[in-house]
Amino acid sequence: MAGEFKRDMNYIPTRITADGRDGYPVEPGRYRLVVARACPWANRSVIVRRLLGLEPVLSMGIAGPTHDERSWRFDLDPGGVDPVLGIERLQEAFLARYPDYDRGITVPAIVDIPTGQVVTNDFPQITLDFTTEWREHHRRGAPELYPPDLRAEIDEVNDAVFHDVNNGVYKAGMAGDQQAYEKAHAKLFARLDQLSERLAEQRYLVGDTITEADVHLFPTLVRFDAVYHGHFKCNRHKLAELPVLRDYTRDLFQTPGFGDTIHFPQIKEHYYVVHRFLNPSGIVPAGPDLSWLLEPHGRERLGGWPFGRGTPPGPPPESERVPAAA
Amino acid sequence: MAGEFKRDMNYIPTRITADGRDGYPVEPGRYRLVVARACPWANRSVIVRRLLGLEPVLSMGIAGPTHDERSWRFDLDPGGVDPVLGIERLQEAFLARYPDYDRGITVPAIVDIPTGQVVTNDFPQITLDFTTEWREHHRRGAPELYPPDLRAEIDEVNDAVFHDVNNGVYKAGMAGDQQAYEKAHAKLFARLDQLSERLAEQRYLVGDTITEADVHLFPTLVRFDAVYHGHFKCNRHKLAELPVLRDYTRDLFQTPGFGDTIHFPQIKEHYYVVHRFLNPSGIVPAGPDLSWLLEPHGRERLGGWPFGRGTPPGPPPESERVPAAA
Repeated sequence: MAGEFKRDMNYIPTRITADGRDGYPVEPGRYRLVVARACPWANRSVIVRRLLGLEPVLSMGIAGPTHDERSWRFDLDPGGVDPVLGIERLQEAFLARYPDYDRGITVPAIVDIPTGQVVTNDFPQITLDFTTEWREHHRRGAPELYPPDLRAEIDEVNDAVFHDVNNGVYKAGMAGDQQAYEKAHAKLFARLDQLSERLAEQRYLVGDTITEADVHLFPTLVRFDAVYHGHFKCNRHKLAELPVLRDYTRDLFQTPGFGDTIHFPQIKEHYYVVHRFLNPSGIVPAGPDLSWLLEPHGRERLGGWPFGRGTPPGPPPESERVPAAA
Repeated sequence: MAGEFKRDMNYIPTRITADGRDGYPVEPGRYRLVVARACPWANRSVIVRRLLGLEPVLSMGIAGPTHDERSWRFDLDPGGVDPVLGIERLQEAFLARYPDYDRGITVPAIVDIPTGQVVTNDFPQITLDFTTEWREHHRRGAPELYPPDLRAEIDEVNDAVFHDVNNGVYKAGMAGDQQAYEKAHAKLFARLDQLSERLAEQRYLVGDTITEADVHLFPTLVRFDAVYHGHFKCNRHKLAELPVLRDYTRDLFQTPGFGDTIHFPQIKEHYYVVHRFLNPSGIVPAGPDLSWLLEPHGRERLGGWPFGRGTPPGPPPESERVPAAA
């Protein structure tokens, strides 16, 4: 359809694996994960790194909330330079590997520190590889986010969530015409209603512990009222008006490894400042009041164990802390 | 302050009065009120005309929701022409009286049918004159909207509501910079909080019946979630999240003469299509779900009589009905 938003899903497919078959073996200290707090796709990798306790073996560079046409930038760092990679723009790592690279400079990206070259920006594979390929370096008590017997179900849920929710909000917000927008909006809320039904009786999306499926859904839900509701016109209801999803989001927000990765000022600044074609003034809304995220969620009554037989992660490293308040 | 929105309040001050001192005496059938369903300032005059039962003596022309740089247009009428005034654009009535008129062509406006000339577009005076100057033509059972003993209090409430709420949402939405926006947003919600307190224990704003004060506040509240929350970034909360004001708005919406003047599709189309500098795509949001407006409001418990010693108006004339559903 003419006005439909199409996401370019051609990411760099190189993988960092235990056996190093693509030339990039898992190796403590060798790679740097580059993210932006604003980005929901990067948020997945930040959460999984936290849940699995990969911080000591895989450092993290944080780009600022606003990028220009060409690249995310390290403008939060002293001098505007990533202290490990020594670059100002993430683009430099992409060009170091592919001098003619002309696709989007996206986060999350993993950079090979010795060569300064990007290894991959393939976000769906990155979190799976954290779980399966970096297993030797997981913290004690790390949860099993992608258990073999649940993978088919997780993949199925993720597929629906990706098309209708994660990317669905973009299809609504970036639609080129009224018809494409309304189609995306209808599919989004139909899926949210279906997820509400699913989550009314079970604490997590698949099985009875946190899995990769929850990691995929959370970044979109937690951003919903702050940016997608108004900026992307996903406005049948606020998340705060959908009780099951509201409480589910609250529950995860209050779980170590989820809420402690979220920085609302950067999220809002990113969307409202970068997308001038949607918001020409660049003015960032003062609302919404998100204090409800810190209120009791009441979902313990549904049973389940957040980390299965594992334990919650400790607090984030000092250098990666975000202000606690919603 | 540089980025502040300033409303041009220089309206045509001519008044239609019982004694005709400005050359325009009250006279059944002589004048036509021109409004647009979208416009909150016009909405006041539509409500008061309904409450006082002026329909048989003062006809109403309805401009379409979208206007261009120059004028509201009668594009809802067959052939795009107002059937009584015989004009396509409201501008024609302004130019008929003032050939060099260069201020805004605004609704509500009252046009002298015999000459085709605009008499006034001074919206704050129009509703007061409906109450005081057209008294001879009020329906039996018409409420007293501006009782002499309450005028000082009504004026005081109206003044605060005008600056912080009615015009406050425009100051937020039309702000030229972040600072002006944040100031308007803060004043708006501080005033809404204060109004919530006031209305927690009394059914109406002043006294114990509907007055001009309620007529001023309602048009902004009923549009709040549909347009001001997202489009004008008035987003600390939705009205649906502020229980007292939500129920107050519900109560009035369900009162004859209020909800039957509201047409949400035209309201949404106006704001999202006309303000391309805020919404370049012109795409109109599918939401919000406004079905809550039809749910029980529970405010009878606060006492009071909606119409004092009067009665509710009957249904609107067939030609002026809007679809009932929110």
